Amino acid sequence: MQLIDGNAIAASIIEELTTEVSALPGKKPVIAVIRVGEDPASVSYVRKKQKTAERIGIGSRLHVLPEDISKEDLFAQIDALNADSDVSGILVQAPLPKHINETETFNRVNPAKDVDGFNTLNIGKLCQEDPSGFVACTPAGIVQLIQRSGIETNGKHVVVLGRSQIVGKPAALLMIQKACPGNATVTICHSRTTDLPSITRQADVLIAAIGRPNFVTEDMVKDEVNVIDVGINRVEDSNKKSGYRLVGDVDFDAVATKAAHITPVPGGVGPMTVAMLMHNTLLAFKASQASQA
Amino acid sequence: MQLIDGNAIAASIIEELTTEVSALPGKKPVIAVIRVGEDPASVSYVRKKQKTAERIGIGSRLHVLPEDISKEDLFAQIDALNADSDVSGILVQAPLPKHINETETFNRVNPAKDVDGFNTLNIGKLCQEDPSGFVACTPAGIVQLIQRSGIETNGKHVVVLGRSQIVGKPAALLMIQKACPGNATVTICHSRTTDLPSITRQADVLIAAIGRPNFVTEDMVKDEVNVIDVGINRVEDSNKKSGYRLVGDVDFDAVATKAAHITPVPGGVGPMTVAMLMHNTLLAFKASQASQA
Repeated sequence: MQLIDGNAIAASIIEELTTEVSALPGKKPVIAVIRVGEDPASVSYVRKKQKTAERIGIGSRLHVLPEDISKEDLFAQIDALNADSDVSGILVQAPLPKHINETETFNRVNPAKDVDGFNTLNIGKLCQEDPSGFVACTPAGIVQLIQRSGIETNGKHVVVLGRSQIVGKPAALLMIQKACPGNATVTICHSRTTDLPSITRQADVLIAAIGRPNFVTEDMVKDEVNVIDVGINRVEDSNKKSGYRLVGDVDFDAVATKAAHITPVPGGVGPMTVAMLMHNTLLAFKASQASQA
Repeated sequence: MQLIDGNAIAASIIEELTTEVSALPGKKPVIAVIRVGEDPASVSYVRKKQKTAERIGIGSRLHVLPEDISKEDLFAQIDALNADSDVSGILVQAPLPKHINETETFNRVNPAKDVDGFNTLNIGKLCQEDPSGFVACTPAGIVQLIQRSGIETNGKHVVVLGRSQIVGKPAALLMIQKACPGNATVTICHSRTTDLPSITRQADVLIAAIGRPNFVTEDMVKDEVNVIDVGINRVEDSNKKSGYRLVGDVDFDAVATKAAHITPVPGGVGPMTVAMLMHNTLLAFKASQASQA
C-alpha cells in the first residue's frame, strides 16, 4: 500500500510555482481575497492562502468587508478588482452571509480572474474541455494527486461517490476528458444509488466525496483500489483536547489494507486546494500577460 | 416490449406548444435561423424547423449567408439578432464552413437567445442545475422520451455510451440531476472503456450515442433494459433506391426482444430535436417577456 502524501505533493507544486514566479521578468501575479465577516474558519483559511501566496512570490491583497454589507457594495468591490489590471485572480471566501447569493457573487467575478473556478462560464468550459477555463481547486487537486502518484486512469473505472457541484461533478467531468489523467469510464453514485457496494467494488479509482465519516468500508472496495478521500468530517474523540478528530469518508485503517494507493485525512486532498489556487492565479496572470502582449 | 414512438411523442409536444402559443395574448415568439451556404442537409433541416415553427404559431426568419462569408460579417448578423427585441431565439445551423470556429460562433449568440443550448454559459448552467439555462435539443429530447414513456430513473443505473459534448455529457449530467427524470446512478462509457459489455449489462436505462451501426448487441444488455438509441448511421442497402438505410447504434431486432422499452431508428430520438427547439424558443420568449414586465 502506498500512502498518497498530499502535504508532500502540495509542497512540490508550491516549489515549482515558486521557481516559475521567481523567473518572471517584470510584474508578479497578485491574488485579491475578499472576506466578508469574521467567521473563524474563514479567517484561518484566508490567512493560509495569503501565507502560501507570499511564499511563492505572488502578491496578495485582503479586503475585509463587514458581515452586514449590502450585495451592491460587495459587487462594487468585486467590480473594482475586476477592473484593476494589477489583480490577476480574485477569490471571494465562502461561506457568505445568508442575505447574499453565492452563485450570483461568484458569477460577478470576471471569468478570466475566477481562480476559484466557481463561475458558470468556467464550469461550462470544463465540460467543453476548453483549457482556457479555470478548474475548481479541489477537483484540480484530485487530478494532481492521481497524476503525481502514477495512478493509471486510461480505460479504468473511476467511481465518484457524491454529485456535488464543487467536487463530485467536476471530478467526474475531469476523469472522462480526453486527457491524461482522464479517459476513464466514470460512474457517479450518490445517496439514491441502489446497491452502492456493487458499484464501488468495481472501482479501480474511488473518489469519495459524500461527507459521511468512515462511510466506505473494506467490503465496498476491491483489492488494489486507488482511493482519493475528499471527506473531512469531525467525529467526537474525548482523547483530543478539541473533543473531536477529523476523519474522511473512507474507513482508512481497514480500506488501506486492500488499497494500492490511498490518501489520508487529514493530509490528503486538503493541502492540495491552496496549492491549486496558486496554480490558477499564475495561469490567470500568464493569460492576462499574453492577451496584453 | 414497448416501442417508444418518437414521432408520436414529438407530435404531442408540438400540440402542447401550439395550444400554449395560441393562448399568448399579444406578441408571439420568433426564431431566427442563420444558414451559411447551401449544404443540402442543412437546407432540409432548416426548412423542417421553419415548418414546425409555423405550425405552432412561432414566427420564423431565415438569414441565408454565403459560404465564404467572413467571421466578422457572420458575427455582425448574430449581433443584430441579439439586439433585436422581436427575436426570441437564434439558431446558427451547423455545420459551419471550416474557416469559421463553431464554438466561438455559438458563444456569440446571446445566452438568453441560445435555444440550441450550445453556449458555454448554458452548458455551465446545466451542470449547475440552473433552470434558467437552455438544454441542447437532443439530450432534452431524450429526457422527454424517458419521462413520457414512464421509465423510472430514480436510483436506477443509467449507462451512457459516448462522451460527446452535444449528447453523451449533457445526457449524463441530466440523469444525475436532483430531478425527475434524474436521480440516477450514471456511468459514462466510451471507446476507451475496458470490458464494455460488463458495464452495459448493468444498465436499467441505456443511452447509446457512439455513432457505430448496430454496435450494441443482445448479449450486451440485461432483460427489461430501457434503450434510447441516439445513433443515426447509414449502412449500405442495395434494396433501397438511395443505396443505403438508416440504423441506430443498437442492433434493434435482437435487443428489442429483451427490452422493456426501446426507441426505433428512425422515428425515436430524431423527431424530438425539432420539438425541443420549439420548446426552448417558447421558454426564451417567456423569459424575455417576464424580464420586460
